[in-house]
Amino acid sequence: MTTEELLARSVLNSWKLVIGRVDQLAASLSDEQLQQEVAPGRNRPIYLIGHLTVTHDLLFPLLRLGERLHPELDNAYLTNPDQTVPDPISSSALKKAWNEVNAKLTAAFESLTPAQWLERHNAVSEEDFAKEPLRNRLAVLMSRTNHASSHAGQILLALPSARNS
Amino acid sequence: MTTEELLARSVLNSWKLVIGRVDQLAASLSDEQLQQEVAPGRNRPIYLIGHLTVTHDLLFPLLRLGERLHPELDNAYLTNPDQTVPDPISSSALKKAWNEVNAKLTAAFESLTPAQWLERHNAVSEEDFAKEPLRNRLAVLMSRTNHASSHAGQILLALPSARNS
Repeated sequence: MTTEELLARSVLNSWKLVIGRVDQLAASLSDEQLQQEVAPGRNRPIYLIGHLTVTHDLLFPLLRLGERLHPELDNAYLTNPDQTVPDPISSSALKKAWNEVNAKLTAAFESLTPAQWLERHNAVSEEDFAKEPLRNRLAVLMSRTNHASSHAGQILLALPSARNS
Repeated sequence: MTTEELLARSVLNSWKLVIGRVDQLAASLSDEQLQQEVAPGRNRPIYLIGHLTVTHDLLFPLLRLGERLHPELDNAYLTNPDQTVPDPISSSALKKAWNEVNAKLTAAFESLTPAQWLERHNAVSEEDFAKEPLRNRLAVLMSRTNHASSHAGQILLALPSARNS
């Protein structure tokens, strides 16, 4: 592999590790724990998994990688706060949607060359991108990886004895 | 900038954004909020900031970037769980240590070339690294960035009205 390929591959690997961590958390939590607020008055793990599913689904148009898979989840998990809209699907159906979105995304990511990672994302204009070349697809990937890590840290609090984790 | 340089620069930018987010959280929390567990029975924000300071300080030897600045914090914030050892320094002194460590680290990061980012980190042997080239300095940087994001997500819970954040 060239230096460019190794750099891009390392970033993609970081995404995969974080997705794997959320997968593991989602699998570890009972249905009851998924419904329990991570701290008093805060989001439930199931809401956070729905929220991550939607934000990842939105990467298809943002990164020009195809059509979204689950826009029907936006109302419950993006547009509205937790516990204001009934969960539209079961926990197991939501976990299936989470896996589908990430599998299709990751497959699309694998096909991008280093130069394609450095192309602009769709929320920045050609003009602005010419001045700010760091507003590229790779920056979006890392931003979403950090976003998923942040919520994974919160979901972890729903598990017993997670002190210092 | 070359493709290599832009890729490495994008990753470093992601680190800086996350450090900035933790800086902002640390500045937003009152001394009382810093001492308040992020959820019942969980870590206090001050412990998490101490823990991040220590794990970042450990990057100096791990990435061959010089000497550690604050090994005296290990006992309170790495070796032992929260609330088992008295805080060794004041909140403001700890925030100062956090800033010092990240400033010195980030300056060292800025000086690395893309090829140097792909060199092995110090916890992997030459032999293992030959087989697993993704165990490089860049992977450590992203792992620590995700780790900081994860704890930032928890620290956020100590702020009022952080629902859906």
